[in-house]
Amino acid sequence: MSTNRLRVALIGQGFMGKAHSNAYHQAGHFFDLPYELEREVLCGRNEATLGGMAARWGWRETATDWRSVVERPDIDVVDVAVPNHLHAEIALAAAGAGKIVLCEKPLATSVEDARRMADAVRGRPSMVWFNYRRVAAVELTRQLIYDGRLGDPFHYRGLYLQEWGNDPTRPPGWKTDAAQAGSGVLGDILSHSVDLALYLNGPISEVCAMQQTFASGRDVDDATLVLARFANGSIGTLEATRYATGAKNRNSYELHGSRGAVRFSLEDLNRLEFFDATEAKPLQAYRNILVNETRFWKPGHILGYEHTFIAALGEFLLSLHRGELFHPDFDDALRVQLVLEAIAKSGNSRGWQTVELK
Amino acid sequence: MSTNRLRVALIGQGFMGKAHSNAYHQAGHFFDLPYELEREVLCGRNEATLGGMAARWGWRETATDWRSVVERPDIDVVDVAVPNHLHAEIALAAAGAGKIVLCEKPLATSVEDARRMADAVRGRPSMVWFNYRRVAAVELTRQLIYDGRLGDPFHYRGLYLQEWGNDPTRPPGWKTDAAQAGSGVLGDILSHSVDLALYLNGPISEVCAMQQTFASGRDVDDATLVLARFANGSIGTLEATRYATGAKNRNSYELHGSRGAVRFSLEDLNRLEFFDATEAKPLQAYRNILVNETRFWKPGHILGYEHTFIAALGEFLLSLHRGELFHPDFDDALRVQLVLEAIAKSGNSRGWQTVELK
Amino acid sequence: MSTNRLRVALIGQGFMGKAHSNAYHQAGHFFDLPYELEREVLCGRNEATLGGMAARWGWRETATDWRSVVERPDIDVVDVAVPNHLHAEIALAAAGAGKIVLCEKPLATSVEDARRMADAVRGRPSMVWFNYRRVAAVELTRQLIYDGRLGDPFHYRGLYLQEWGNDPTRPPGWKTDAAQAGSGVLGDILSHSVDLALYLNGPISEVCAMQQTFASGRDVDDATLVLARFANGSIGTLEATRYATGAKNRNSYELHGSRGAVRFSLEDLNRLEFFDATEAKPLQAYRNILVNETRFWKPGHILGYEHTFIAALGEFLLSLHRGELFHPDFDDALRVQLVLEAIAKSGNSRGWQTVELK
Amino acid sequence: MSTNRLRVALIGQGFMGKAHSNAYHQAGHFFDLPYELEREVLCGRNEATLGGMAARWGWRETATDWRSVVERPDIDVVDVAVPNHLHAEIALAAAGAGKIVLCEKPLATSVEDARRMADAVRGRPSMVWFNYRRVAAVELTRQLIYDGRLGDPFHYRGLYLQEWGNDPTRPPGWKTDAAQAGSGVLGDILSHSVDLALYLNGPISEVCAMQQTFASGRDVDDATLVLARFANGSIGTLEATRYATGAKNRNSYELHGSRGAVRFSLEDLNRLEFFDATEAKPLQAYRNILVNETRFWKPGHILGYEHTFIAALGEFLLSLHRGELFHPDFDDALRVQLVLEAIAKSGNSRGWQTVELK
Repeated sequence: MSTNRLRVALIGQGFMGKAHSNAYHQAGHFFDLPYELEREVLCGRNEATLGGMAARWGWRETATDWRSVVERPDIDVVDVAVPNHLHAEIALAAAGAGKIVLCEKPLATSVEDARRMADAVRGRPSMVWFNYRRVAAVELTRQLIYDGRLGDPFHYRGLYLQEWGNDPTRPPGWKTDAAQAGSGVLGDILSHSVDLALYLNGPISEVCAMQQTFASGRDVDDATLVLARFANGSIGTLEATRYATGAKNRNSYELHGSRGAVRFSLEDLNRLEFFDATEAKPLQAYRNILVNETRFWKPGHILGYEHTFIAALGEFLLSLHRGELFHPDFDDALRVQLVLEAIAKSGNSRGWQTVELK
Repeated sequence: MSTNRLRVALIGQGFMGKAHSNAYHQAGHFFDLPYELEREVLCGRNEATLGGMAARWGWRETATDWRSVVERPDIDVVDVAVPNHLHAEIALAAAGAGKIVLCEKPLATSVEDARRMADAVRGRPSMVWFNYRRVAAVELTRQLIYDGRLGDPFHYRGLYLQEWGNDPTRPPGWKTDAAQAGSGVLGDILSHSVDLALYLNGPISEVCAMQQTFASGRDVDDATLVLARFANGSIGTLEATRYATGAKNRNSYELHGSRGAVRFSLEDLNRLEFFDATEAKPLQAYRNILVNETRFWKPGHILGYEHTFIAALGEFLLSLHRGELFHPDFDDALRVQLVLEAIAKSGNSRGWQTVELK
Repeated sequence: MSTNRLRVALIGQGFMGKAHSNAYHQAGHFFDLPYELEREVLCGRNEATLGGMAARWGWRETATDWRSVVERPDIDVVDVAVPNHLHAEIALAAAGAGKIVLCEKPLATSVEDARRMADAVRGRPSMVWFNYRRVAAVELTRQLIYDGRLGDPFHYRGLYLQEWGNDPTRPPGWKTDAAQAGSGVLGDILSHSVDLALYLNGPISEVCAMQQTFASGRDVDDATLVLARFANGSIGTLEATRYATGAKNRNSYELHGSRGAVRFSLEDLNRLEFFDATEAKPLQAYRNILVNETRFWKPGHILGYEHTFIAALGEFLLSLHRGELFHPDFDDALRVQLVLEAIAKSGNSRGWQTVELK
Repeated sequence: MSTNRLRVALIGQGFMGKAHSNAYHQAGHFFDLPYELEREVLCGRNEATLGGMAARWGWRETATDWRSVVERPDIDVVDVAVPNHLHAEIALAAAGAGKIVLCEKPLATSVEDARRMADAVRGRPSMVWFNYRRVAAVELTRQLIYDGRLGDPFHYRGLYLQEWGNDPTRPPGWKTDAAQAGSGVLGDILSHSVDLALYLNGPISEVCAMQQTFASGRDVDDATLVLARFANGSIGTLEATRYATGAKNRNSYELHGSRGAVRFSLEDLNRLEFFDATEAKPLQAYRNILVNETRFWKPGHILGYEHTFIAALGEFLLSLHRGELFHPDFDDALRVQLVLEAIAKSGNSRGWQTVELK
């Protein structure tokens, strides 16, 4: 790797390919990056659109065979943004070729794959795109917890609600195909909820789940509901569904502790609601904080979806340069995968399932 | 029973005694009642305060022995508003004496008691004070469902959150004593959530639950979390806790169907949020309806907690006069009790539990 | 006046008659009243409905001639709840007969009348039904200001929005007839906004206004908009309209000071939003307080429109017994009238108008 | 001008310089631009930071003398993003040199300057950065109006609230210096409110205003409040203040019409509240639309402040290529300036002021 530039190969030309491309453009505008990012290769299988996308987003070359790309000596970073079932093979190959590997979530479609991937990069910086950790309101939640403002945790509630599962006009895609996605909401959106739960409330020790497919002929879970017990003694629920009519992308959580509580919803991502139970009783109330993320613009200037990717990338690169491990890395994602596996097992066995330790 | 007056004995002088007393005063002001309500006897065990309460609320007499009261020939209606463990004995005695019986929720502390109580009044009008059915927003929800505006139900979420479980300044009371309350949040507040779920989304076929006691030395559940499968094919969660820091009395539900969705919270009881999925896509959104309940005042004039009791009583008396069964009656409350029992069993057995049919 | 009972004559059988009747019933249930309230006479001109209303609300007698009523020796309190143009004559007669006089707002249809009315009761307790001062959130606002939590005031915004002005299905009534109402929104709803502004932010020194009638053939203001300068150096706007499509009864205000700010809306009357500018910057935010008014029920138990009347009456009676002047009294209402007059003059003259001192 | 590339000179290196730089980067990623945008020169007076900013945002060259820049033959577009008092001279020079001119708002510090600027570019495409027209919710408002969904307009309310005026820790800047800014909130933020009012509700015929300076020693308006009459017969208020404690950047409006109403706040910029008065009464309510702007990401994926600049630039370039005039152009900004001037005159004269026609 050259000391001051990073040559990136992005594998994937879908919606995530676009979100990541944007991040590679924008990170240097808002972060003091220690690297020059070079958008070297965009790799995808749809030749009809690949060239146009590369031109639009300034990728120097295109390729359709990821195998050749991940071994190119002029590539430093391989970013995997393809359907879930392809993550493991590509990421392992890239890791084997000594590349810095970034991977979309969920890390894999099985714990076995996830474990091999985590093993392959252990000791080296890696990143999984659990981008919602980088919402300013989520970071503020983490800070409040760290500062003891929530006290001892009692109850965590994580919901991820979407409505498109029931949209008959929507063309079928890989996300509802078990062969490509591995699972339905479990890997696609409950994985985000699990990651945030682990990030904010620590390890989950056991789960009890139900999974439901509403659409006839579909082989993945349209909804997954979970009872959870956390290692810190708190309890909670996790829910994900694509049948929540009225919800576009409502990734939300609520955490109640002995000294305070927080509420967050991604549909209102510039806000965090915080309840301070140490206030005088008559003035105790949820306050609705317009969270001040000032790396981008100024207080009061609204940020959006894309900034979570830019911030994740920016912070990863700063960590990389400082020689520090970044989070969430492949090990964090493996921990998520272990919870997802316990959930799936519980759904099948209709009983409580202990979450395996990493 | 005289044709045009109803002589009431209220058993109970606590917070519910006050709420019911108010209802007996106010029902005739807002409903065209076919009866004269006479507040005949207020019965309670705290003699120090009983007389004052009776004077304030216009009860003609007081008594401390409920047994003598329920058999008095000059009493038509016995209203049971005492701690849960006493419901069955009093209600059965009153029913046995031929009285019209009204009873606070939960109906009983066991299915056996509840069944005997329901049997004792079957065929006669009875009422259980699941008063939240009478919130105008809940009635509008029911109407929207009846009119098909929500379509096929997919997902029901019922939460009842309070925070006082963790308040060390609060004096202990019967609600945290298993001997008197029978259970903790299960009977006290999850019973409301279960009643609303049954009312709005129909029978629950099976449940899987976890129950948690946070306070040391307490012998009732501080939190109960439930996965549920409904007979209509939808799924959902029910949660009740007294450890939800930030929540005063947040009895809320959300129902997602194929054609629409609703959201409600008792902390905002004059509102119903309704999402109409049949609208043109760009204008689809939750609308926040200031629900127009006009039996009391005018549209836009806010109602409160007490009006749910007044409306329940008013509608009960109108049903009584028409010779119709009222809902929720003891049979409805028995159905709730069967769900509560299944939840408790599931919490103990750590497995799914089928809900017994009435 | 007998020492321990107050015999009330209510003049008016409309919507306010109902609201006041309810207050006479309920005040004693929630306040430790030093008086027995006796609902002696209900006086109104619609004989067809008068008897029914008296029966429903427990008025001992009815009468159709207010003149005879206000002079009856067996009446202690005369409560005037008739169209605005009749306030002065009735109230003056009642005051002349030595009665305790309560009067609906606006006190009168002219400053001259208001001044005569205030003069007639000066030194004696009187009450004007600016009931919204008794919303718990308004009382909390007052307390926060008193405690210095808002600091020096900069900006006050008072809006009272209704939508019925444009409803062609609504039958005409006295509120849109200048001969009976004196004015349109000015006296009907802007009077409430002015009263709250004076109560919360002190005297208004000058105003500049525009008034607008939208409906053809109507002779009262459908909307009145005001620029205002307060004696304390702050500035602001007041707006009232019956053409605010979407607003049922949105009486709202916002006050920004050097140390904090508040927001309130009557359509959410159990809430007060409070911003504390002395907090650490990243946590500064409006908090949405579920205001704990516990004279009625318990924290978290929602109150409504009618409780403002009950609380006003209850506090008036307590003041009366203590021999203290109550607020808002006729002098307070005269101050409102002086502002309303300045607004009307400004609307006519299209220039700034100094508010006359009482 | 070359047919397929546009060489841009950006004059200004402050916060707007950053926002515009970002737009030049991003427009081509989300719009099918008919031009190659070349970031040719960044021009500013602070040499210490100019190079760093140019490097970060990819400007080929830097310059400190705007006069030389605007006359360079290799420049096609001059974008003016400097303090207000410099707009006229630079824009006129650029227009005189035949450049395409873009200018920050307010267009000028006087109507005379604004008129000369508008004259200088008339018949040629120009753009003023009233970027908030490009908020998706604002565009949806415009569409609803165009589709007749709001009916006849009654009442428009435009507020722009900020709180920094009272922050003693904030270093002084050109925005509170009359010599550089021309005015305080009038040009800085009320100009946005006026532009949106004209855009959404048409010409303002007359105004009556008050202006206030709170900070001692400051020579610009900290708050400006306006009564307004629109040419379409509706009325309204406009308010801007930097002393609205609790408000970061609350640019909001509300419009009530005979068939509907809308509410918007920039602090919640992904939302539009819409009230449809043609719905059945019991279901009439404000709906809270998560506005679907899909040129950037997908429905439900939140956008932010910067996207208003990107969309403005993207649409300007598409208009330019089609040979159509773009809005808001210099003539639109002149119309805003005429309203601002009438407001200032009214504030001085303490009387109503007719708005001069363009």
